[in-house]
Amino acid sequence: MAPAGLRLPKDAPRTFGIVLYTQFEVLDVFGPVEALNQISRNLADNETPMKCITFGPSTNPIRSGPSEGMGSSFSQSFVADTTFDDEEKLSEVDVLIVPGGLGPPDSERQAVIDFIQKFYHCHVEGQQNKYLFTVCTGSNLAAFRSSKDTQVPSALEGLAATTNKSAWNYFFVENKWHKATSWVANARWVPQGNVWTTSGVSAGTDGMIAWIAQVYGEDKAQFACNTMEYNRQANPDLDPFAAVYGAQDVPATEADIKWIIKT
Amino acid sequence: MAPAGLRLPKDAPRTFGIVLYTQFEVLDVFGPVEALNQISRNLADNETPMKCITFGPSTNPIRSGPSEGMGSSFSQSFVADTTFDDEEKLSEVDVLIVPGGLGPPDSERQAVIDFIQKFYHCHVEGQQNKYLFTVCTGSNLAAFRSSKDTQVPSALEGLAATTNKSAWNYFFVENKWHKATSWVANARWVPQGNVWTTSGVSAGTDGMIAWIAQVYGEDKAQFACNTMEYNRQANPDLDPFAAVYGAQDVPATEADIKWIIKT
Repeated sequence: MAPAGLRLPKDAPRTFGIVLYTQFEVLDVFGPVEALNQISRNLADNETPMKCITFGPSTNPIRSGPSEGMGSSFSQSFVADTTFDDEEKLSEVDVLIVPGGLGPPDSERQAVIDFIQKFYHCHVEGQQNKYLFTVCTGSNLAAFRSSKDTQVPSALEGLAATTNKSAWNYFFVENKWHKATSWVANARWVPQGNVWTTSGVSAGTDGMIAWIAQVYGEDKAQFACNTMEYNRQANPDLDPFAAVYGAQDVPATEADIKWIIKT
Repeated sequence: MAPAGLRLPKDAPRTFGIVLYTQFEVLDVFGPVEALNQISRNLADNETPMKCITFGPSTNPIRSGPSEGMGSSFSQSFVADTTFDDEEKLSEVDVLIVPGGLGPPDSERQAVIDFIQKFYHCHVEGQQNKYLFTVCTGSNLAAFRSSKDTQVPSALEGLAATTNKSAWNYFFVENKWHKATSWVANARWVPQGNVWTTSGVSAGTDGMIAWIAQVYGEDKAQFACNTMEYNRQANPDLDPFAAVYGAQDVPATEADIKWIIKT
């Protein structure tokens, strides 16, 4: 079958980075990536190709499990294209996708957080056509400050955001984490300029379809849905899983909040 | 967060094999696998664990692309746990998941087909609690006979089945392949005893949720949907993508058809 000959807007972001780490949640990555795969292989001949670069703590195989403390060895194995310290590759990235999951384990956690903040502060903040896109508890990783400069607010401070609903009360009621972000319970995804957060696992797919619609055009979003035979949820404010897990809005309470982007 | 303490029916299948090959479609694998991941890590302490084994042509990294002839290098890298010739590991498998995709390339194609047929004929045919589960064009791979014994019908001969809708007319109108199977256009998935086929890409997730409901129980299916925040499509006969791509039923026409399982 021949490519469909899709055209992207001039200067649209085309290079996607994906953060991998031990115990990442597989659908957090491969739902959004599937939509991008479909677009990437159906561009018109004279379009600049899309590119995908996976980043990990090393280029050794990374397992999506075992799920420590949960009695399961059910997992799969992945290899990152390069590592978190590859500044050159990172500088190519227009959109960094950050999955959630049971990981990263303590041994990788700070490196993942520092990598996300490095990308955000060096390549996204104040830029056009650059995006941080988190899925599930990837937003919780993006909400932590870098250990390299603890005085600099994290990518999510001052923003509205969402995350996994089954982990919601663990994060915000039991542990009261991430108080400098306004957490929205009834949200499938929350677009805040060039920082997009999506709810748990499957929500990343709907969020990426919405991102494609906004940045590449609605026709590309519909093309991806059709080729991946995906029944899209197009309303960002509809989230039945907030009620399932009793998740309620958590307003930002830190004194250093200056603004919440209205979308 | 503590595991949810799920219990599976006694003697329920617990070991899943996954077929990997160059240019497999990522969501075909990681949609169904995500649902299984969620169950696997939430079993009760005294439950027999679930297990996942990935099989590939080798244990070298396998790329989901590049998409040959489609101008894209957009892909990710995976490592199989073992190879297609690992009879011992294969004998452990209760359910083999076969993804579709642009691959396998010619160099891997026959090995993939032979592996699927070996599993079906040695471990599924005439057995209880053993399943072949295909996603997308994985059913087209399962519809070919093994090169090891070309006189033996393939896993799909004589059955009703479905596959990817955007590729439907390429397979059945342009090429008239797989004439010994009855291809159902308006199907999200087609359960035929211990052989399940699902439609394109995302349909594999709905099919696996349905399999979980039937084999493990509806409560496990709902648990998986909630934890992966998945808006399930529970009707196997509802498929808007058949109309999108003009897919129509293709009755089996070969003289050796003996039966179509009615479900």
